This record gives sequence, structure tokens and C-alpha cells, in this order.
Amino acid sequence: MARHIISAKQFEKNEVLALFEKAKKLKQAFKQRKILDVARDRILTTVFLEPSTRTRLSFTYAMKRLGGVVVDFGAEEITSRAKGESFEDTMKMLDCYAPDIIVLRSKEVGAAERASKIVSCSVVNAGDGWNEHPTQALLDVYTMWEVFGKVDGLRVGVMGDLKYGRTPSSLSYLLSKFSNISIHYIAPPELQIRQDVLENIKNVEVNMHSRLEEVDVELDVLYVTRLQRERFADQQLYEALKGSYTVSTTLLSRLRKIPTIMHPLPRVDELSTEVDVLPQAKYFEQAENGVYVRAALISSLLSLNTP
Amino acid sequence: MARHIISAKQFEKNEVLALFEKAKKLKQAFKQRKILDVARDRILTTVFLEPSTRTRLSFTYAMKRLGGVVVDFGAEEITSRAKGESFEDTMKMLDCYAPDIIVLRSKEVGAAERASKIVSCSVVNAGDGWNEHPTQALLDVYTMWEVFGKVDGLRVGVMGDLKYGRTPSSLSYLLSKFSNISIHYIAPPELQIRQDVLENIKNVEVNMHSRLEEVDVELDVLYVTRLQRERFADQQLYEALKGSYTVSTTLLSRLRKIPTIMHPLPRVDELSTEVDVLPQAKYFEQAENGVYVRAALISSLLSLNTP
Amino acid sequence: MARHIISAKQFEKNEVLALFEKAKKLKQAFKQRKILDVARDRILTTVFLEPSTRTRLSFTYAMKRLGGVVVDFGAEEITSRAKGESFEDTMKMLDCYAPDIIVLRSKEVGAAERASKIVSCSVVNAGDGWNEHPTQALLDVYTMWEVFGKVDGLRVGVMGDLKYGRTPSSLSYLLSKFSNISIHYIAPPELQIRQDVLENIKNVEVNMHSRLEEVDVELDVLYVTRLQRERFADQQLYEALKGSYTVSTTLLSRLRKIPTIMHPLPRVDELSTEVDVLPQAKYFEQAENGVYVRAALISSLLSLNTP
Repeated sequence: MARHIISAKQFEKNEVLALFEKAKKLKQAFKQRKILDVARDRILTTVFLEPSTRTRLSFTYAMKRLGGVVVDFGAEEITSRAKGESFEDTMKMLDCYAPDIIVLRSKEVGAAERASKIVSCSVVNAGDGWNEHPTQALLDVYTMWEVFGKVDGLRVGVMGDLKYGRTPSSLSYLLSKFSNISIHYIAPPELQIRQDVLENIKNVEVNMHSRLEEVDVELDVLYVTRLQRERFADQQLYEALKGSYTVSTTLLSRLRKIPTIMHPLPRVDELSTEVDVLPQAKYFEQAENGVYVRAALISSLLSLNTP
Repeated sequence: MARHIISAKQFEKNEVLALFEKAKKLKQAFKQRKILDVARDRILTTVFLEPSTRTRLSFTYAMKRLGGVVVDFGAEEITSRAKGESFEDTMKMLDCYAPDIIVLRSKEVGAAERASKIVSCSVVNAGDGWNEHPTQALLDVYTMWEVFGKVDGLRVGVMGDLKYGRTPSSLSYLLSKFSNISIHYIAPPELQIRQDVLENIKNVEVNMHSRLEEVDVELDVLYVTRLQRERFADQQLYEALKGSYTVSTTLLSRLRKIPTIMHPLPRVDELSTEVDVLPQAKYFEQAENGVYVRAALISSLLSLNTP
Repeated sequence: MARHIISAKQFEKNEVLALFEKAKKLKQAFKQRKILDVARDRILTTVFLEPSTRTRLSFTYAMKRLGGVVVDFGAEEITSRAKGESFEDTMKMLDCYAPDIIVLRSKEVGAAERASKIVSCSVVNAGDGWNEHPTQALLDVYTMWEVFGKVDGLRVGVMGDLKYGRTPSSLSYLLSKFSNISIHYIAPPELQIRQDVLENIKNVEVNMHSRLEEVDVELDVLYVTRLQRERFADQQLYEALKGSYTVSTTLLSRLRKIPTIMHPLPRVDELSTEVDVLPQAKYFEQAENGVYVRAALISSLLSLNTP
């Protein structure tokens, strides 16, 4: 039976570490600038019903570097989805074409899970509304593992819009698979992490703050996400808060130790470009690691004979 | 000289049956989940000047599974067509790039035929306005052939908007190549099959009905198409008629025998999802067969050395 | 270090002629309808932030015929660029995926040059606003070289909107690398060639005219570009001028000798389709040559072992 990647909750620690080892080997292999030949009979279909660059492109690069075929579903407005076809019918139809993997992004929470119950191939959740983005979490935690040589024991700050972001929830679930993790959620009360996320990470030491300056420990990682203006009913409140959620060298210099800075990208104003030159800035490495981690995931789902 | 697929009228029965045999073999080969290597030096260009999912994707899958290259022209709004280039110039230009096949969908009746007179490669009509969609007819009749082991003698009901649909006309032309075919056209008088279609299928026994319940023979196949609300000047008439053109298990249960149910997809309301579980429901098999039949057609046009 | 193609100014004559010889060999090879295997481990990414057909497709065909992989960035509106990501971040991110070449079109003057300072792979300018389009100039001059067997000594008329067109500037720069070139710029005064272009082609004999009939020498080439209505503040002036800038057989018959007619395409009204049948009409050959010249450029940038 096909395996699916629906939620960061679904992984076991050993499985994650095995995936990281595979990603590390693929990183070395891909750095040789060779196209492997291991996925030559396999087809991956990207279905992005919401705009995307990084996720779509990194899955595409990953599959092509493995030697496989990629077929893009096309932007929603150029497809029959515009004619009013139901999600179920679209998925059934795609399955008829016998791809090996469907990578699905949708505005709707639970879309990937619904798809996985319809199709016979593997489904990978590439973002379902505000709910989850498990492959993002995999590349995020992979990057931490690469920087620190381990994940156990890390103190991670997660900052920005935690309520409506799918990245903070998947990251939290994945970190919770490791030991002695503490997470510091830094957000205005209106945008703090959702209760349903907390209920799924009971073994994590959780701390909540409304400003970065309130964090009283030395963070290993500061994971920044966007604070979206449109989420605020009170625009004056947004203006007042904005400064505390813009990660600049000034803000970082107030910390006792500058943590590894991460961001899922794209960024707008919440992460100043002056930070880019700091050795702690790892967000472009994160983006790069997306290719290796997703290639490792594809290899695992398809049992490919990778290096 | 390059061969073109412009109209379902152009085929001979023997040619169609040979294509079906080839499609059947390719179905077996593709089910092995192997990418064949037979089209490795060939390029197919998809030019969809109107939205499409199924036709574009199934040609893409077909060509990729044959080992060939697919280049998509791009959505009309991102191309120079937006700058006011004429259709003739666009086709001449595409021909300069030397694809082996151009698969063309257009809102304009006769577009594929016009293209075929401009370019030196093969043109496949993937839908030209309300006129024709010959590869759809090929996969439709292939599916009947697969279900019944033959096409001669079938009694086929075709229901919905028959006037403005390109699928009913191409299907009629292709069925007319076989013997002892009877077609029951089921549509409100305003949307009945066009006279020009009937003139081309003189060897078919034609019956017209305004409701499914009027059909007094046991149909082998009921081919459902969409009844488009926007076609009705009188919206009350539409509301009144709608029920008779929604194929539900209730409607089907009134028939003495439930026929094989087909639909070109996408469907909206005209075919209830409750029908999906019936063994007679064959519309997703139809969609799947699209890949095999189109691969067979590509093989034939390019004289590929397929299994 | 990666080489970039930013401006037609950057080339040396010998380099251009070597590229033309390579393009000529690739033309012969591609005419065999074979996909070469020389770029099998290479990835080219097309990033078109402005609509395009010809340039995008011809780079795609070129790379695919060399056996390489093409990944399209996607239309701007379906990507994260829509979320407000900066150009710098988009380029850094793309570079993380390790393409071998980025082919970039942008509305912004200098975009390709900026990109080349950000990324580690080769950048090819596929048009940056009204500034330059160097690969268009390469295929334009290649076509002249093919027709005349040489470029030195050619008398070239360039007609239309010379002020806002990126094609006339790049063409001028590239022609200026050859000897004894004379260029006749034919445009209404408001749309004449820019002073900054003239400053870079001091070894060219430059003549300015407001109408084709004023040109008193026999041109070897007449290069037509579009006169865009929207550039005129005075619409009556546009209507008055339009006739003089529409190349028709009538207009051409007034010349002592009909020159080779070229056009970057797409055309609208400025070049009558009656001209297409003249043996001097070379604009579709130009489009075709785009594939060979761009393939030669890719080969050169990636040091491929082409025929």
C-alpha cells in the first residue's frame, strides 16, 4: 500500500534520522552536479492549488536530480477545476494517470488527507491551509541537525504569526519527536500558537512570550515567520507591534548570544537583509536543504536505490 | 507528409480497430510502470488556448511514458498571443522549432485544420470550439470496445447539451464507422444534436428523445454530458428540465437494465456521485484509457516501434 | 567562475563568429531530429517575469535537444513573487537549487546584471525592460551571416520604435563588433534611437531617417520592429505616421532593391503578411535560428562537448 506524508505527527524519531542520513548522502551526490538515474521509471505530479515557488521548485529539482519525470497539474485557472470539478473527481482523475507521487498544496485544511483516501499512489502534503506543511518541518529540522549535529536538547524560539501559520505547527510536531526540546513561542497574544498544537507536543517544554526580549535563556535557534498585517483587526496594534517582530541586527545584538536564524521564506519585512551576512543566518541553506530532504523523502516513498 | 488528426470523420473502421489493439498493448506495458524508450528523439508540444486538464495531462503522460519530450506552449496570457500575434504566425513560429506533433485546443472552430495547413509536423485536434474532439471520441469508443469486446451493434444513448458540445459530434462520427449502431439522442429540443452531425452519420439508426424515460430500448451505453445553464434563455425552463438530465441512481433504477455509464468529465451536477459505485460506471476508466489511446495515436503518427 | 550573457556589448567579433560556427553545426545536427546527449546532467531554469513565447520556447527546445533538463520558474502570479519577495531573495533561492543556467526576463532594466552578481551559476539576459536582449541580437546577426556569408560591410536599416525597444539597441551593439557596418535608423523623431546607444557604436556609420523612402542607399537588410500606439501622446500623429511604418509589398516595391526583411516577432500590423512569400522574408528563419544560436550559447556557457 502506498505511504503518504500528511502530517509531521506521523513520524518516528528513528525514521526521521534515517531520512536525514539519506538526505545528507544525496546532498553529497547532488553536489557532484550529476543527474542520478534511480527514479527513471517514476512520475511525480505537482498539484499546487495555491501559489508556491520554493516547495514546487524544490520537489521538481529533487525528482529531476533523481532522474524521474515531473508532470505539473497546471495553475488552477487553466485547468478544469475552473469548470467546477470537485476535489474528489480531480484526485480520482489524476490517479487514473498512474503517477507514483502526488505532491499537493491546497487552501483547504485536510486536503492531502482526503486525497490520500481517494488515490492509490503516495500523497505528499505540501501545505493544507493553516494546518500543516510537514516537508517544510523536515527540512527545517534537518538544517538544525546539520548545524548542531543533533536535535535532542535544542532550545528553539519560534516567532511571528503562530496561529495561522502551517509552518510553526508542523515544526512543533516534528521537534516533539526528539528529547529535551524546549520551544519558546514568541507572538502577540492574538497570534499565539494554537491550543490544538500544544496538545500534541506534551513532552516539549513550552514557553510563551509576547516579545523576543522576554526570552530569558540562550536560544539555539530563532525561527522567524511573517507577521501578517491582514490578521490584525486593529491596525494601530499592528504598527505598534511590528518593531518587536522585525529581526534586525539591532534586535539580535540585545541577545546574550545570537542564535541560528531560520526562516521558511519568502520573507518581507520581518527579517532584515542586514542579518544575511551573519554566520548564524541559515535560511538560504534551509531552502537548499529542501531539495535534498525532499529527494530523500521521494526515495523513501518509492524505495529507490539511492546512494 | 505528416498525418493530422482533425476530425473523427477521417478514420476508417480498420484503422480504428488497429489503434485499439495498439492501445490495449500499451495499456499492458504502461501497467508495468515502466517508461518506454520508443519516443526518445521526439518532441510533442501542447498548445491549449482554452483551459484543460484531462486532455493536456493525458497527452503529457502518454508522451512521457513513451519516453518522449513534452514542451508546453504556456497559458495564453503568459505568451505573445497576448501581444496580438495572429494564429497563423503563432503556428508558423511553433513549426520553426520542429516539434513532431502539435496538440492544439482552441475556442475557434476549424483551428486545428487551419494549423495543419500551416505547419509541417502532425497536428492533433484536442478540441476546436463546439466542433470536434476526435481523440476524446477515440477513447470513448475504445472504452466501449473494452467493455463489450466489440462496437458493432451497440445501442448508445447520448444525453445532455448535444448542440454545443464537441464531444457528442465526434462520438457520433466515430460510432458511425461501425455497423448496426443505433444512437438515442436525449436532450431538450433547444439543445438537440445538430443537423450537420446527422448528415454525416447516415448509416446510423438515429432516435431523438427529450427525456431518458422515453427511450424504449435497453441501451448498452448511456453517455452523459453537461447541460449548461448558460445555454438557456429561459432559466425557469432550465430549472424544470434539470432533474431529467441529472443521472442519479433513482433515475437509473427506472430503467429495465442499467447501461454502461460514460461521461467525458469534468462533471458538475449532471451525474450524481452515488452512481460511481455501480459496476456500470466507467467514466474514470474512460479517463485512464485516454492515456493509452493517445499513446497509441502518438505511436501511429510517429511510426514508433511500440510493443 | 560562471560566465554570464548580459549585454550584446560584451562580445568580441571572434567569439561571435565561433558561436555562429557552432550554431551552424548544431543546426545540421538538430535537423537529423535527434536529441543529443551532451547536456544530460545539466539544468536550465527559465524565469520569465514578463510574457514571452519565442524566447522561452526556443531556450526550452535548445536545452531539450541538447539532452538537458529544463525547469520553469512559473508565471509570476503563481509564485511567491506575488507574496512580495524581493528580486534578490528570489535569485538567491533559485541559486540554492543549483541550476547551471538561469535565463531571465524582467521588466526592469539591469535585472540580469543584478542577478549575475547574486548567483553562482550563469545568467542569460532574455530581455531587461527597454534595455537589452542580447540573445535576440545573436540570432539576428547569425541570420544575416547565414544569408550573406559575412557580416562585415552590411548596410542595415532598423525601423520602428527604436527608443523603447531592447532589440534595436542589442542589435546595434552586436553589429558594431564588425567592420564597415552602416546602420540606417528609420523612426519618427520621438522614437529615434537613444543617444546612449549611439555612444556605444562609434565605429558604425550611422544615418537617421524619419521614413523608409528617405534612405538613399540599397539596404542589405531591413529590420522591422513594432511602432507601438501607446508610445504616442498625440494619437493623430500616430495615425498619420502609421502608414510609413507598415512594411508592405507596395512600400517595398518603391525601393530600388528589396532588402532581406527581418523582424524579431511577434508582429502586429507593421509587417504585412503579403511580404511573407517574398524570398527576402527571413523572419521565420530568424525564429528557427533562435534554437540553434541559443543551443550554441548554452554549449559554450557549459563547455559542452557538442558536434
